[in-house]
Amino acid sequence: MKTSKLSLLICIYSFSILCGQTSIDEFLNLSKQLVRRSLEDRKGYYWLKELCEIGPRLVASSNSYNAIEWARKKMIESGFDSVWLQPVRVPVWIRGDREECQIIKSKEYSGKKLNITALGGSIGTGDNGVSGRVVVVHDFMELYTKRDKVKGNFVFFNRSLDFGEVETFSAYGKAVDQRIYGAIEAAKYGAVGVIVRSITTKHDNTPHTGILRYNDSIPRIPAVVIGNLDADFLVNAIKVEPNLELYIKLSCKSLDDTISYNVIGEIRGCELPNEVVLVGGHIDSWDKGCGAHDNGTGVIHSMEALDLIKRLNFNPKRTIRCVLFMGEEFNSIGGIEYNNYAQSTEQIHIAAIESDRGGFTPRGFSVEADSNIILDLQKFLPYLSLAKIDWIRKGGSGADISRLKNVKAKIGFVPDNQRYMDVHHSDNDIFEEVHPRELQLGSAAIAILALLISQFGL
Amino acid sequence: MKTSKLSLLICIYSFSILCGQTSIDEFLNLSKQLVRRSLEDRKGYYWLKELCEIGPRLVASSNSYNAIEWARKKMIESGFDSVWLQPVRVPVWIRGDREECQIIKSKEYSGKKLNITALGGSIGTGDNGVSGRVVVVHDFMELYTKRDKVKGNFVFFNRSLDFGEVETFSAYGKAVDQRIYGAIEAAKYGAVGVIVRSITTKHDNTPHTGILRYNDSIPRIPAVVIGNLDADFLVNAIKVEPNLELYIKLSCKSLDDTISYNVIGEIRGCELPNEVVLVGGHIDSWDKGCGAHDNGTGVIHSMEALDLIKRLNFNPKRTIRCVLFMGEEFNSIGGIEYNNYAQSTEQIHIAAIESDRGGFTPRGFSVEADSNIILDLQKFLPYLSLAKIDWIRKGGSGADISRLKNVKAKIGFVPDNQRYMDVHHSDNDIFEEVHPRELQLGSAAIAILALLISQFGL
Repeated sequence: MKTSKLSLLICIYSFSILCGQTSIDEFLNLSKQLVRRSLEDRKGYYWLKELCEIGPRLVASSNSYNAIEWARKKMIESGFDSVWLQPVRVPVWIRGDREECQIIKSKEYSGKKLNITALGGSIGTGDNGVSGRVVVVHDFMELYTKRDKVKGNFVFFNRSLDFGEVETFSAYGKAVDQRIYGAIEAAKYGAVGVIVRSITTKHDNTPHTGILRYNDSIPRIPAVVIGNLDADFLVNAIKVEPNLELYIKLSCKSLDDTISYNVIGEIRGCELPNEVVLVGGHIDSWDKGCGAHDNGTGVIHSMEALDLIKRLNFNPKRTIRCVLFMGEEFNSIGGIEYNNYAQSTEQIHIAAIESDRGGFTPRGFSVEADSNIILDLQKFLPYLSLAKIDWIRKGGSGADISRLKNVKAKIGFVPDNQRYMDVHHSDNDIFEEVHPRELQLGSAAIAILALLISQFGL
Repeated sequence: MKTSKLSLLICIYSFSILCGQTSIDEFLNLSKQLVRRSLEDRKGYYWLKELCEIGPRLVASSNSYNAIEWARKKMIESGFDSVWLQPVRVPVWIRGDREECQIIKSKEYSGKKLNITALGGSIGTGDNGVSGRVVVVHDFMELYTKRDKVKGNFVFFNRSLDFGEVETFSAYGKAVDQRIYGAIEAAKYGAVGVIVRSITTKHDNTPHTGILRYNDSIPRIPAVVIGNLDADFLVNAIKVEPNLELYIKLSCKSLDDTISYNVIGEIRGCELPNEVVLVGGHIDSWDKGCGAHDNGTGVIHSMEALDLIKRLNFNPKRTIRCVLFMGEEFNSIGGIEYNNYAQSTEQIHIAAIESDRGGFTPRGFSVEADSNIILDLQKFLPYLSLAKIDWIRKGGSGADISRLKNVKAKIGFVPDNQRYMDVHHSDNDIFEEVHPRELQLGSAAIAILALLISQFGL
């Protein structure tokens, strides 16, 4: 019995003995152990529960600072070699306590309340609110053709996400212009406000928020998003009574910028510490649900990838660094700030892996890199397939790491995406929507890829 | 405007004009339309809601006959060329209204009720119930070592599904022997009954039932399955008080065999009607939840694959036949009976596709066929990838079609499997656990594969 226990110890700790000496064949065993430990322990899943219990993590909110401190402590507890906070100057936008929308000046529908929420960054309406008729359009072209009717009224961007498109991120991308630029375009013609149909695959009444943009040369107007069911209702009501009006009152506002932080932790490379493999995801969220899939799961994937490597007592050849970016929802300000830091050090970032597409079952990795590097990465598929990675392809990576310069490969983790837009930026995005096994396979897939790059380079 | 409408009409109906003349290139457009219509219409999802509202479909239950009639009517409404019922002799097992389990003869735990349900096919206990101490074992080997303690007592098979294994069906397969053969093995040593820990990836208190087997030369004893939480409780309680007893009362029983039906519908091939591509899944379920993923989704996939082909007005070259098998949960009796029919006709079954792994996002097809046929099938991947099929590999197909002889390719639809064992054979298996987009992609993937084989053969 003593001999067999000793063998077991040697087996478990063998990864830590030989820095950088692990052969590609030994990796098969290591990868299997990583996947097994991830699924058995469910440590990331319990971490996500704790993170979600803090509440949603709007940039500069007290929750967001609590989440930063939570992540910092977990990294220290996990035994990362260095853990630090990088200051990031962030905008401060608060929703306030008033979000009202009701139909007025209508025979049939007066008093009917609609379920709206302000878009991120929107100005408020003032205490008196704003009212006007509603011009329904599907896109900026139709807005242009109806521009004469817009002055003094609301523009309602009614285009739905295309339910018939397989790739939900692509469908989202084709509908999101109205949310981001709608307030600018409508204000050009004198609109008093903008209503946008939620960009979601779920036909319920939950509004899905997100950032908007203003343009300094065009007046700022309030902008809200409306749930799909109320959007349907409103469209029909306007057909019946084209002159009905809406009254909207919002208390949201922007305050002065403040300081928040990227949370950074690393396992130092035992042979090439100045070569860095980054794994990351943004830690901020919208103030809806608890930001579970967007992007609590990316936070967990990134932290747990390193924690799994520690759990298996493995010493990676190159440094593996976890970066939790602050402010992705506000134009990736944390990603930009991290790049400033990265360019100022002597360290070389050889690869960056981002998780920001939810915590669903892994499917592949989408890579910004030269074709020969992608071919090299594809040689890792026998190991990654243990965590349900079927492919590695050229494609976009992630919003935060796309800001990083001088990196050989920027790699986006791609899980199944069919359910993501059901919850994205909304009260639907809660812990209960995350499946433990699906989440844990993502942590394992990212850990395996980070380790492979750390050991064998690119 | 008239011209453009005419072009649209020609485009929509072009598939119906030329029987068997569609080129492989035109298939790309057809496949895209199939996927789009499936996702947009969500017809299968609404069908599944209706099917689930009938209730669970235990073989020979009134629900099962209602489901048969429901499916038959839907096939007729969809305009299938022929719809018929094939009689199948089925066993009749009823659960009855009594399933009780409580701890007795214990200082600490007497009166504590445990959440159990009878295994399918189990005998009842009689009105007086059965009681005895509990011998905890993990497998048949441990049972053998403890055989002297078994007489007059219960055997509790306490082995959990291996949470660390990635492939949940494989993990299930490694744990299910205790559920299927436990009653036989325990009765060899004089046990009064068997308790089996639920074979599931979910750590809740829901019992997951399933079929057991008896052996005519060994006494039949009652067998139940227990939820994970109560299994944990029981293990700990027995550690504290090894001599505590359980009392179990079950009213389940078997009645005489009766007649049920496979439900069959087809679109006749316009050029080679005697060559058949079968798509199918079993329509029976356990009497828990509503059998949504097991196997309502397989029923819907099979019916909707044909319905999608009709919706696009396509005339397939070879016959495409939907078979809803009765009695898969009772050793695939419907599959066996269908094979008897298939062998008696002059028709040739060139391929059979089965859906019985849930309604999750498609991943691949697992094929029983010669390697050269699998290579041929892999040429279809550019079309199937539109519905998220990443691979086609050699492997097992499905329980019902595995009974079919003289088929070139038996093909199992493989969706993501991480959530399946959470719900399998339990009250967790409800309509709300099925995601509309995930389900609809399965219908599209199977429709595309059936059409490709129908047009181009194997």
